[in-house]
Amino acid sequence: MILPTPAIEAAVNELSKLPGIGKKTALRMAIYLLKQPADRTEKLATSLQTMYANTKPCATCFNVSESDLCTVCSQPNRLHQIVCVVEHFQDIIAIENTRQYRGVYHVLGGIISPVDGIGPDQLNIQALLQRLQNQNIEEVILALNSSIEGETTMFYLHKKLENFKVKTSIISRGIAFGSELEFTDELTLGRSILNRVMFESQLNHR
Amino acid sequence: MILPTPAIEAAVNELSKLPGIGKKTALRMAIYLLKQPADRTEKLATSLQTMYANTKPCATCFNVSESDLCTVCSQPNRLHQIVCVVEHFQDIIAIENTRQYRGVYHVLGGIISPVDGIGPDQLNIQALLQRLQNQNIEEVILALNSSIEGETTMFYLHKKLENFKVKTSIISRGIAFGSELEFTDELTLGRSILNRVMFESQLNHR
Repeated sequence: MILPTPAIEAAVNELSKLPGIGKKTALRMAIYLLKQPADRTEKLATSLQTMYANTKPCATCFNVSESDLCTVCSQPNRLHQIVCVVEHFQDIIAIENTRQYRGVYHVLGGIISPVDGIGPDQLNIQALLQRLQNQNIEEVILALNSSIEGETTMFYLHKKLENFKVKTSIISRGIAFGSELEFTDELTLGRSILNRVMFESQLNHR
Repeated sequence: MILPTPAIEAAVNELSKLPGIGKKTALRMAIYLLKQPADRTEKLATSLQTMYANTKPCATCFNVSESDLCTVCSQPNRLHQIVCVVEHFQDIIAIENTRQYRGVYHVLGGIISPVDGIGPDQLNIQALLQRLQNQNIEEVILALNSSIEGETTMFYLHKKLENFKVKTSIISRGIAFGSELEFTDELTLGRSILNRVMFESQLNHR
């Protein structure tokens, strides 16, 4: 694509490195910014720089944070004795937006994947065990993706957690709300029958 | 949407002001940047600031430019006696990428639209007439969109150009390559029959 100036070319190049952004969309963004007052570009640029500069991992749970403790860990009214283990901090955003969970989190920073050279030592697992030793934790919820690596990691954690007086649970798998039985894969459908729950217990959640 | 920190919220906010970017895509971009080395964010931010700071309208044609004359006007091997009139500088990008045009341009900066309070004086029309007076221009190609406002503007320009010894042409309308006759609107189909060209003259273009 022929672009009018080197500066526009550089900006389009950088924009198109963002996920899901092709050259055409990047150009549309650049043209939009050029046609707006200068402070639009300035605010966007500085907000990105500030975001990067001001965030760091939470000292306790490795969630993304602007202070030593993240916005979840620093809240006294959360249930600090329940810890939900997730792969990435963006999983916390997803769970928080359900507004259903009142416990705290622990971000592993990945999952065990020998193919990618990621073993338990590359993850924040030691820090999790430390938390179990030092804090009064009653339950650990494993909320990893149900890939082979995710299942392996959950199994590994489950074994490690046996050394502590702590309940280990796992988020329920099943047919998503709005999905049709007919088009659900066999594994999910099979498990959802095996793991069926009493009708009354479901009513309580409504 | 609940986001982990105010800095991330601010960045997502600014990103989601870009055209075609919703909150979810903006969040995906922010997460991507946070997981990359610092220079990714830095390069993106500064490339946008540099783009805005270094560009200005070309002194001759109002195309976006980094110097007094844009990359088209400053090329001696372009046909400076043919001027293509467009609405926005992004139309120049589109035409340049066809690699079919060897003349120069003139950006109006809009079209006549009484509803939006835009008359001829708000556009770069006086500058175009000045160019016709001072330079040796043989042909003006009107390449505006075929909306009512576009047609009005082209008619206005055509009238103004009658005072000069210059040919006025208009880009051809018709059925786009790959379009089906069956689904073409009546106006376009009707005009494409009225404005038919000799088969032999088309062959010369191949």
